[in-house]
Amino acid sequence: MALFAYVNGRYELQRGAGVHIEDRGYQFADGVYEVIAVQNGRLIDEVGHLDRLERSLSALEIAAPMDRAPLGLIMRRLLEKNRIDNGMIYLQITRGVAPRNHAFPEGMKPSIVMTARRLKPFSRSHFRQGVCVITRPDTRWKRCDIKSISLLPNILSKQEAVRSGAFEAWLVDDAGNITEGASSNAWIVTGDARVVTRDAGGAILNGITRQRIIALARENGLSLEERPFSLEEATEAAEAFTTSSTALLRPVVKIDDRVIADGEPGPFSLKLLDLYAAHMERGGEAP
Amino acid sequence: MALFAYVNGRYELQRGAGVHIEDRGYQFADGVYEVIAVQNGRLIDEVGHLDRLERSLSALEIAAPMDRAPLGLIMRRLLEKNRIDNGMIYLQITRGVAPRNHAFPEGMKPSIVMTARRLKPFSRSHFRQGVCVITRPDTRWKRCDIKSISLLPNILSKQEAVRSGAFEAWLVDDAGNITEGASSNAWIVTGDARVVTRDAGGAILNGITRQRIIALARENGLSLEERPFSLEEATEAAEAFTTSSTALLRPVVKIDDRVIADGEPGPFSLKLLDLYAAHMERGGEAP
Repeated sequence: MALFAYVNGRYELQRGAGVHIEDRGYQFADGVYEVIAVQNGRLIDEVGHLDRLERSLSALEIAAPMDRAPLGLIMRRLLEKNRIDNGMIYLQITRGVAPRNHAFPEGMKPSIVMTARRLKPFSRSHFRQGVCVITRPDTRWKRCDIKSISLLPNILSKQEAVRSGAFEAWLVDDAGNITEGASSNAWIVTGDARVVTRDAGGAILNGITRQRIIALARENGLSLEERPFSLEEATEAAEAFTTSSTALLRPVVKIDDRVIADGEPGPFSLKLLDLYAAHMERGGEAP
Repeated sequence: MALFAYVNGRYELQRGAGVHIEDRGYQFADGVYEVIAVQNGRLIDEVGHLDRLERSLSALEIAAPMDRAPLGLIMRRLLEKNRIDNGMIYLQITRGVAPRNHAFPEGMKPSIVMTARRLKPFSRSHFRQGVCVITRPDTRWKRCDIKSISLLPNILSKQEAVRSGAFEAWLVDDAGNITEGASSNAWIVTGDARVVTRDAGGAILNGITRQRIIALARENGLSLEERPFSLEEATEAAEAFTTSSTALLRPVVKIDDRVIADGEPGPFSLKLLDLYAAHMERGGEAP
């Protein structure tokens, strides 16, 4: 645990930092969040994350508790106070505190909580290792495009993955298509070298890393398709990988009990990982 | 706000009562709850609520923080400390506090929070008044049978109801059938005097009041069906009503812009309300 957290205007010792029991985040999952990777003191793709945060807040009609400039200052100050150069920022905004009632008063004062965590500096050799995923039915609600804290189905699927010794659970919708992972976006590379990921919409969270990988793929002349793909197509693909702000890009070498191709991370996955690593080493950038 | 809340072993002043920022209830909606009506100092259908609480905890693999006997004592002590004879108890149990990670450590110590609220004593004349509901698409996840705090779609629908001047939002699934309300179960009475409510399953929360009304209807010789019913069937029904532990039973006289029958609360709704009121006056009872 880091030493300090930021809670509603104050830097507090994280160990004792609290929110009110009637914070609507606690009683109704009425809030949103972002996770931003920190690499050599730089917030990777901060603009993309703050853009998405504003979209999520707007979708739930939660007021932004402050402008971007002070938000950016607080994130940096929190990293400094915790002496973190490599790791992540977790930022959560809820609708605030009110007597429990499904409907909410208009004009509530939102709550904001921020924590920082130290992680090992990025290591290419670690991220080049293939991982296994399991698949689980996608039982989530229809607005997964909002990055809300309503994550109960996600955590249950992730727990099943961990218990199976897998890195992640990929979620399969009623049509048999993979939507995304419990906390990452899912990708495949077809036999004819097309990089495929589910199209953005209510069924997935449009990851900032997902958007960055799409941009990097296009800039580098790869063929890219945003469309549904089935579990069957995935298990027969040439490559598969999964992406998120903290998992970055991990080659997937097994889905349930099906080994992907020869069971080794594929060239497109590794190429995209290299491109993403270079992007991070440049300190990320505005989209 | 009541004076005292119960939080993880202590009666605290509710105004300042808090939980840790890394309580998984706050970060992942990883918890469950119950709302129990209190009538003349009696907890209505306590056994049914505590049975369901155990089922919800079990479905999420959250350990019960204590046995039923101490839980019952604490609820009663909290009512006493707040001098509440008529109102409700809100009881929330989450998986507890851990460094943020989708997957959770095994054997976590759950968090428990309990609040009490004073409400006006039951008045037949108030509850006999008809209410209006709107309908909204049911965007929720597929395990609505678990009474989890993952309530974001519920609160958004309820807010739309309140803004429309309606009492409740009834939710309509992809097949055009009504599942339930944002915080209540939905019922109709057909032209040939059958009382109908959605069958229990993943699509609805099996309300304790719902179960009690079913039992009361059967005991009193009414014809009862648990099955899906469409929005169209509802708008053409002879009667409609909505039930919950705190709303009890409210006759529904309008669904969106469609007036139900003659726009007055119907005889079956009022009969069931009377039966439920008598049940409460007896202090509730074990199922």
